[in-house]
Amino acid sequence: MGTTRITAEPGMPFIDIEREFDAPRELLFRAHTDPELIAQWLGPAKYRMQVERLDVRDGGSWRFVHFDDRGNESGFRGVFHGEPSVDGILQTWEFEGFPGHVSLESLVFDERDGRTTLRIHAVYQSVEDRDGLIASGMEGGMNEGYARLDALVGRLARVA
Amino acid sequence: MGTTRITAEPGMPFIDIEREFDAPRELLFRAHTDPELIAQWLGPAKYRMQVERLDVRDGGSWRFVHFDDRGNESGFRGVFHGEPSVDGILQTWEFEGFPGHVSLESLVFDERDGRTTLRIHAVYQSVEDRDGLIASGMEGGMNEGYARLDALVGRLARVA
Repeated sequence: MGTTRITAEPGMPFIDIEREFDAPRELLFRAHTDPELIAQWLGPAKYRMQVERLDVRDGGSWRFVHFDDRGNESGFRGVFHGEPSVDGILQTWEFEGFPGHVSLESLVFDERDGRTTLRIHAVYQSVEDRDGLIASGMEGGMNEGYARLDALVGRLARVA
Repeated sequence: MGTTRITAEPGMPFIDIEREFDAPRELLFRAHTDPELIAQWLGPAKYRMQVERLDVRDGGSWRFVHFDDRGNESGFRGVFHGEPSVDGILQTWEFEGFPGHVSLESLVFDERDGRTTLRIHAVYQSVEDRDGLIASGMEGGMNEGYARLDALVGRLARVA
């Protein structure tokens, strides 16, 4: 199974993420943009994920909600800058529990020999915002999500 | 006449801009969101400015074009994250001549005693992107634009 590499240089407002998947980039793109697919993998395993809105186009917006066992909600939202495609996705990203602190993230799907490396470059409005997100434990939830995404695109690749 | 203060700390991907205007913040907001008004002030004086699209809402997009004497075009585009209001505007920003290099900028209109300080915090995907924009001579065009904006909101304030 692949591992996720996270780079967060001290004192800079960036996070870089790199994760390889055993599937072509079309499937990675689909898993990021099809509401039924993204609900199956994004976020920590302990939450139920609901896609409230995912309007995949230039200027389209998205909103996802995670529910815990007791029904508590965590909302996330953003808009797409430019047309999302297999060449990449550029979007804003905001956790509604920390409103007004928004990041801009680019996702690139780099395919070689049928395997695809997902590269994310996220930039925050301050180093404090970036550090706060890392301190919140994003890494654990992301790893759980990518393990499920790995399994999902593996199943899709076998079906295709 | 007010002066524009630009801060760009070396080695960081931020630009901060501060400019005071002798007008209430409602007028500054209008001058940023009304297509007929924004066309009167934004950008270097030597260009004709055309607002191709300015859809002021959460997820709305905008596109502006500057034309020089010989009809050469420079296009700029972005999308709004969140509902733009007198409390602030958050938007992506891209110069089409340097595609794929996008920034995220917040504008805040801070009014005190009838005067308003516009504060912009822009964050770039890399320090190189930020440095390239500064090297392109953005400061001169911005100062010309803000001098026109100053005169425009002054006229609007006298009419109101």
